[in-house]
Amino acid sequence: MAIALGELAVRFGCELNGDPDAQVDSVATLQNATARAVTFLANPRYRRHLAQTRAGAVILEARFAADCPVAALIAADPYITYARVASLLFPEPQFPAGIDRGAQIDGSASIASSASIGANVVIEAGVRIGERTRIGPGCVIMQGSTLDADTRLVANVTLCHDVHIGARVLVHPGVVIGADGFGLAPERGRWIKVPQVGCVRIGNDVEIGANTTVDRGAIDDTIIEDGVKLDNQIQIGHNVRVGAHTAIAGCTGVSGSTSIGRNCMIGGLVGIAGHLEICDGVIITGRTLVSRSITRPGMYSGGLPADEVRRWRRNAARFRHLDELARRVEQLGGGKLGNSKQEDEDD
Amino acid sequence: MAIALGELAVRFGCELNGDPDAQVDSVATLQNATARAVTFLANPRYRRHLAQTRAGAVILEARFAADCPVAALIAADPYITYARVASLLFPEPQFPAGIDRGAQIDGSASIASSASIGANVVIEAGVRIGERTRIGPGCVIMQGSTLDADTRLVANVTLCHDVHIGARVLVHPGVVIGADGFGLAPERGRWIKVPQVGCVRIGNDVEIGANTTVDRGAIDDTIIEDGVKLDNQIQIGHNVRVGAHTAIAGCTGVSGSTSIGRNCMIGGLVGIAGHLEICDGVIITGRTLVSRSITRPGMYSGGLPADEVRRWRRNAARFRHLDELARRVEQLGGGKLGNSKQEDEDD
Amino acid sequence: MAIALGELAVRFGCELNGDPDAQVDSVATLQNATARAVTFLANPRYRRHLAQTRAGAVILEARFAADCPVAALIAADPYITYARVASLLFPEPQFPAGIDRGAQIDGSASIASSASIGANVVIEAGVRIGERTRIGPGCVIMQGSTLDADTRLVANVTLCHDVHIGARVLVHPGVVIGADGFGLAPERGRWIKVPQVGCVRIGNDVEIGANTTVDRGAIDDTIIEDGVKLDNQIQIGHNVRVGAHTAIAGCTGVSGSTSIGRNCMIGGLVGIAGHLEICDGVIITGRTLVSRSITRPGMYSGGLPADEVRRWRRNAARFRHLDELARRVEQLGGGKLGNSKQEDEDD
Repeated sequence: MAIALGELAVRFGCELNGDPDAQVDSVATLQNATARAVTFLANPRYRRHLAQTRAGAVILEARFAADCPVAALIAADPYITYARVASLLFPEPQFPAGIDRGAQIDGSASIASSASIGANVVIEAGVRIGERTRIGPGCVIMQGSTLDADTRLVANVTLCHDVHIGARVLVHPGVVIGADGFGLAPERGRWIKVPQVGCVRIGNDVEIGANTTVDRGAIDDTIIEDGVKLDNQIQIGHNVRVGAHTAIAGCTGVSGSTSIGRNCMIGGLVGIAGHLEICDGVIITGRTLVSRSITRPGMYSGGLPADEVRRWRRNAARFRHLDELARRVEQLGGGKLGNSKQEDEDD
Repeated sequence: MAIALGELAVRFGCELNGDPDAQVDSVATLQNATARAVTFLANPRYRRHLAQTRAGAVILEARFAADCPVAALIAADPYITYARVASLLFPEPQFPAGIDRGAQIDGSASIASSASIGANVVIEAGVRIGERTRIGPGCVIMQGSTLDADTRLVANVTLCHDVHIGARVLVHPGVVIGADGFGLAPERGRWIKVPQVGCVRIGNDVEIGANTTVDRGAIDDTIIEDGVKLDNQIQIGHNVRVGAHTAIAGCTGVSGSTSIGRNCMIGGLVGIAGHLEICDGVIITGRTLVSRSITRPGMYSGGLPADEVRRWRRNAARFRHLDELARRVEQLGGGKLGNSKQEDEDD
Repeated sequence: MAIALGELAVRFGCELNGDPDAQVDSVATLQNATARAVTFLANPRYRRHLAQTRAGAVILEARFAADCPVAALIAADPYITYARVASLLFPEPQFPAGIDRGAQIDGSASIASSASIGANVVIEAGVRIGERTRIGPGCVIMQGSTLDADTRLVANVTLCHDVHIGARVLVHPGVVIGADGFGLAPERGRWIKVPQVGCVRIGNDVEIGANTTVDRGAIDDTIIEDGVKLDNQIQIGHNVRVGAHTAIAGCTGVSGSTSIGRNCMIGGLVGIAGHLEICDGVIITGRTLVSRSITRPGMYSGGLPADEVRRWRRNAARFRHLDELARRVEQLGGGKLGNSKQEDEDD
């Protein structure tokens, strides 16, 4: 679809430097944009590309407008405005209401008449599917699970029994929700399985990335609150709670019974131990190990960055003797380490 | 189903403090239990909830019985007893024998008459399915694979060719068993694929979590012994052996040709390098990197815990110069580090 | 199939010590080989098994030939030669041309007459499938995606819309290509979804391991170049470029907009932050965190190895005060750390 710059300016509250009748129909990066494409400048590291851009228009902050060689849509938050423009130019796909002839639906399931059920979908007893919800090809929805309106399972998603999903949720392929948590009791060198009888409850406006897994609760439910965004290949253990509007990047694992607050941002490949409490407003950088509860908002880190291998190995070898090194320094002078005023202020 | 406390006490060898005719029909946590629910106290951190519980009965150790405000089922190991009670109240689902009309079964496959084959299952040539084994919807079982009795593939599981699975195995959705291992030979800047001609052999009473992958052997087989429990999103490389009754938590990766002993417990997000031997009885905490063989039972760690970001960065910056720091200390007095008596005793 | 040692020697340019008419029909390890099996010695750690082998023939370097108790095929690179011999003895499976009756193909899709489409496959509008390409059971190929000749999706693979895959590509089960990248813009405590309108382009001769995910680009495309080999459970973020003939081991995550060079080798469980440039010829060992661009070829590390738990904890506790320790040492004598000549030379 094509739209005039003037209409974009009006719709999204931007000031326009340029021809309001010029049309755009696509999006692109600053470097690759052509005359029918809108682009944006949000990350300052890409500012160097502004002078050469051949875009139809650039969405940017007022402070950069003078440097823009083409039409400019001036916005307080260019990335948000870009997201809105792109959503207008590339609307979500619409799916025809009805049930594909290759889907297998249990007679006791309740499917809204405007819902769209794709090929090779399997829907078991007692499932309820809301209005305009799309179940893509190859999905399996086991008994008693429910999905509210305007939700989409893209393809090959598995919902185990008694999984409850809100409205406007987007679930990418390969996701498994409601598999048994890892509940084992040790007895004389063997493991006894602890039945996982809780459910999974997922709020509204949640997005779940490809091949992510969310286990069902052991007793109480596993809960993903409204507006949570989970990237790909995340593992959410049983009885975890993820607070509203928290975003978690790919490959992160959250162990059982941990509660994460609202509006947190958690990086990729982070490991969070079980039975912890992470308060609201916590930012955790990538590859961090969280082994204790976090009670103060703020940013936390734990990953040592890569180094050239010879130096890394020398330093890592010394790490094996760090305690001895510290004791030696204490003996050489100045007394105990770890008690200085500055350190205390940080705690 | 409902059951009397007296019957639970007799079945599971508990002493009962309370009315033997009181009925329970569910399980719950100490905090949320109501009068028809059984709960338990195993993790001491939840002891503070005991006094307020409104459960029908609490399974606990004798030492806590006096503090229990409701009926108590006294057990030597409350978590094991809870697991048994929950299994009684929530029995595994039963599946009707037979083959769903939407399944596609090769004529040369052998399916036990009591087996249950779900919708959209694909079973290729030469596959054998044992008695009462359940193949859930969307599973693909490629040629020559075999499953013994009472095993369950929940849904959307893929078994590649010549994968052999024992009895009473539970495989959660999205699992892939028998994909090619990562076998590559470098030649003049390109990779030549090394055919992966081994199989996968999985013992009895194994559980495999959602989206976990177990690669086939390069030449010999990849082996998962009896009673092994694998959590979600674990990667098991080619020719790995996991010893009986070992449990591995989510997101852990085991590289090729490594052998893990029996009765090990391995945390989440652990990385184990290839061609190692881990002896029996090893415990590895979460997020540890194992790059050498482990020959002594015991607990091993390797994850630095998260810290407030400013302090983390100051310390991480110093880590880059740790070897220089240690050499400086050696110069300042006391000679070489890393040779003290205490360190030697630890080795 | 059986083949004579003499024919192997001629085909693969080996010198043969032994009977050229002796037949072999399988491969095995040095320890387990019997008289009809070919084996090889490439990793010196297995040299101790050579004297006892009962193989039909061993592929090895000339320097080990004198120690070989059975027939020897002498090769400059035994592992490469083994890979070729194994590929001859175990050819790739052939699939019958045609479309399984259980597949659902949109009328506008273009399927080469020699292609093989398995059971329960779903192919949407506008898809193109090349000659001899095999789409295994349960795969979903969404609209507009294309696959060139001689490619294989093993089973239960999901290609989202507008994913473009080259020739001779092998994609293992559970892979998801083209799911939305993790594009979110924060606005007043909520996340606005940024439409992911780029594609995924995958070159020729690529292999992608089980349950790996490759996200579509946000604006430009995500690109996997020719000859790239991805192990299982890897996450490739949006707009990543992986250079030709780079190999990445399992469970590694690459964040969005990072560019990895050609002929790199990246270990397992590595985390690579977003918006970085990794140059050609970089080797990164397992469990490393890469948080800055790498501009020089070479080997980089970042994982601290496991230690016995008591010692680990003592050292990790000291790490929390490493900056204080270093400042103390600076005060004790010798001035600032981190400026020595040797360190500078390493940089």
